[in-house]
Amino acid sequence: MMTTHEMLVAAQGAKLALARANGAVRARALELMADCVVEDTAAILEANGQDMAAARGTMSEVMLDRLYLDEKRVASMADGMRQAAALPDPVGRVLSRTVRPNGLQIERVSVPLGVVAIIYESRPNVTGDAAALALMSGNVCVLRGGKEAWRSCHAITAAMRRGLVKAGLPETAVNLVEDTSRDSARELMTASGLIDLLIPRGGPGLIRSCVENATVPCIQTGTGICHVYVDAAADLDKALAIVENAKTSRPSVCNAEEALLVHEAVAKKFLPMLKERLVDGRAAARKVPVELRLDEKAAAIIDGAPAGPEDFDREFLDYILAVAVVPDLDAALTHIAAHSTGHSDAIVTEDAAAAKRFTEAVDSAAVYVNASTRFTDGGEFGLGCEMGISTQKLHARGPMGLEELCSYKYIIRGDGQVR
Amino acid sequence: MMTTHEMLVAAQGAKLALARANGAVRARALELMADCVVEDTAAILEANGQDMAAARGTMSEVMLDRLYLDEKRVASMADGMRQAAALPDPVGRVLSRTVRPNGLQIERVSVPLGVVAIIYESRPNVTGDAAALALMSGNVCVLRGGKEAWRSCHAITAAMRRGLVKAGLPETAVNLVEDTSRDSARELMTASGLIDLLIPRGGPGLIRSCVENATVPCIQTGTGICHVYVDAAADLDKALAIVENAKTSRPSVCNAEEALLVHEAVAKKFLPMLKERLVDGRAAARKVPVELRLDEKAAAIIDGAPAGPEDFDREFLDYILAVAVVPDLDAALTHIAAHSTGHSDAIVTEDAAAAKRFTEAVDSAAVYVNASTRFTDGGEFGLGCEMGISTQKLHARGPMGLEELCSYKYIIRGDGQVR
Repeated sequence: MMTTHEMLVAAQGAKLALARANGAVRARALELMADCVVEDTAAILEANGQDMAAARGTMSEVMLDRLYLDEKRVASMADGMRQAAALPDPVGRVLSRTVRPNGLQIERVSVPLGVVAIIYESRPNVTGDAAALALMSGNVCVLRGGKEAWRSCHAITAAMRRGLVKAGLPETAVNLVEDTSRDSARELMTASGLIDLLIPRGGPGLIRSCVENATVPCIQTGTGICHVYVDAAADLDKALAIVENAKTSRPSVCNAEEALLVHEAVAKKFLPMLKERLVDGRAAARKVPVELRLDEKAAAIIDGAPAGPEDFDREFLDYILAVAVVPDLDAALTHIAAHSTGHSDAIVTEDAAAAKRFTEAVDSAAVYVNASTRFTDGGEFGLGCEMGISTQKLHARGPMGLEELCSYKYIIRGDGQVR
Repeated sequence: MMTTHEMLVAAQGAKLALARANGAVRARALELMADCVVEDTAAILEANGQDMAAARGTMSEVMLDRLYLDEKRVASMADGMRQAAALPDPVGRVLSRTVRPNGLQIERVSVPLGVVAIIYESRPNVTGDAAALALMSGNVCVLRGGKEAWRSCHAITAAMRRGLVKAGLPETAVNLVEDTSRDSARELMTASGLIDLLIPRGGPGLIRSCVENATVPCIQTGTGICHVYVDAAADLDKALAIVENAKTSRPSVCNAEEALLVHEAVAKKFLPMLKERLVDGRAAARKVPVELRLDEKAAAIIDGAPAGPEDFDREFLDYILAVAVVPDLDAALTHIAAHSTGHSDAIVTEDAAAAKRFTEAVDSAAVYVNASTRFTDGGEFGLGCEMGISTQKLHARGPMGLEELCSYKYIIRGDGQVR
């Protein structure tokens, strides 16, 4: 078995070949990798069958479904790689150019970050998605999937590496960590000098562990306690549609709404509409009614479970919504400042001044006026892809596409200038 | 005494007022702060006199000079604040704008990072410089100066805070940590959620401690083991001027040259020229000759001290230069990849292909062709100012000006869109 350290050294060795391969070569490699993945479908499904067999009985049905691959899911992963190949090359763009009075020409040029490590959990298709985005942005990737998906990830990686070699690129441009113990995650977090960026994609425990332990540059992704604030001046029909969509269209994802704040001037009218839509009425068509957890003021207007204070700090990822009535916009802003994870927050209002104050004051990656928080997504933002959604402010914020996987360097050309 | 935690909470409380103050208000505040600093010159010099008295005997002359303030230095600090006030406002720029097919208008807008903490060492004037750049980029700052400069820093901060209040901004926009023990530095490094960016400005020990201990977002600055490579196709007169300038114009700074690599095809001609210029000849005018530490091949051509292997991994910050002869460009690239700190590296060559290969392969913040590494500086790059030079690849690389002290957020405006 290759140690994680040996793998990281090999990954460093592939950086230069990748940085020098132009966009057309990297795109061609991705197409060959996609072909190899499709060719290897039988081997990938066999490996996945072994993973599934081992996991059955130890995992929930939801988790088993995340682990599961079939011919269609493998084909869709390969398609994703072809789509990444069609995106504009983010490397080598001249971001700024200036000629100084002394004649120095200073260019700021986009370059790959270098070695990007991704720690992810049970979904094996992340292996293909993450490798594709890393390669298209000129980065070597080090993938560390979940233990339970290891055989599947390994089969996918083997196929991708065959494609890399066909394209004349080093197979060490894509690496799968062989050690799936916690030790290897810790080793990636502390591999200073060998990893240029670490992206943890997983639950709050993984993110917290990275924040606490990482000595390598790291991007926090994902945790989303997203708010919708229904203002005194809201169009209540829009508000209802937005709240329903943000909460129920896909509750398990990070851009789903977890808390609703309602201005007291409209609470008596809006909350019964909300209960009818999410709990009593149209909920029947969805089979799953939303559980409303109400603060005191909301509970005085409609029925529902009482909210504990911790309910406003939880990412439910479920058909549960915490609801509070606030006296005014400022109280909503104060609540959001205290409870938001800085992912996505929305105001519903027809009052331009309230919208302006909200977009200025809310310190989140995506701040919405009259739209659902569910749009925070690389595809929906027009980036064409997404490696994750950053909830930190350094380097990248919100959906991370190919440009966010790049750094830059200054290239300065002179004719003997000295200072 | 205010605890560091209390101070950070107060700093967080000033964020919104600062984010909402427009550029003109912040610029005006800086001018009033500069006025107050000049008004308080006597108090600042008195405090500095106490710092100097306490430090004498425990510090080298060089360090004492860094600590020392006089009327001219205080005035120059105030001028720096007025210059920052004249820079273009980096906040609120629309970095991109797109309208999606569903009608959503998505804008990416520059915003302050929030609370920026700066840990620095003995130079008290950093207090004014750092506060000015933080304020002009809309950031609250938390300053943690060196213990030995505390009285000076405190007097400067008191003056600046009077200016803030005159401008109608909260005095907690600029904060000086009162606890100057190591504990407070550690506390800043781990104040997750209270600090949006930590910038350590100091020696390698401080930087390493931040990398190892920081759980808050952090920018590595400064350490510069900078190389000049004299290619086979170099104009040797240019090379000599560049090496002399990069090494001797200011050896104590991070963009000074520490190692020289010479292609063996020109070594026999170039090294004697080098020795004449840096050691024997014009060195007399400078009084301080450069100590050359030579690898075996260089030592076969000229006299000098033998270089130990560790000499190619040292930031001398002194009149010392490590010199190696390399067989070709590839060997120079391999040496630089192994020994550079990613700050600034230069090639001297008239061969366009060699220059291209060098600028592609060298993974440093600033890569030079035919110019001195000494130009890596916010002022020289036309940024107008500089908070430090980043040697990491995440967020900012090279000189950090006002734009690099900002993050961005997405503001999405709709008319009821759901997904």
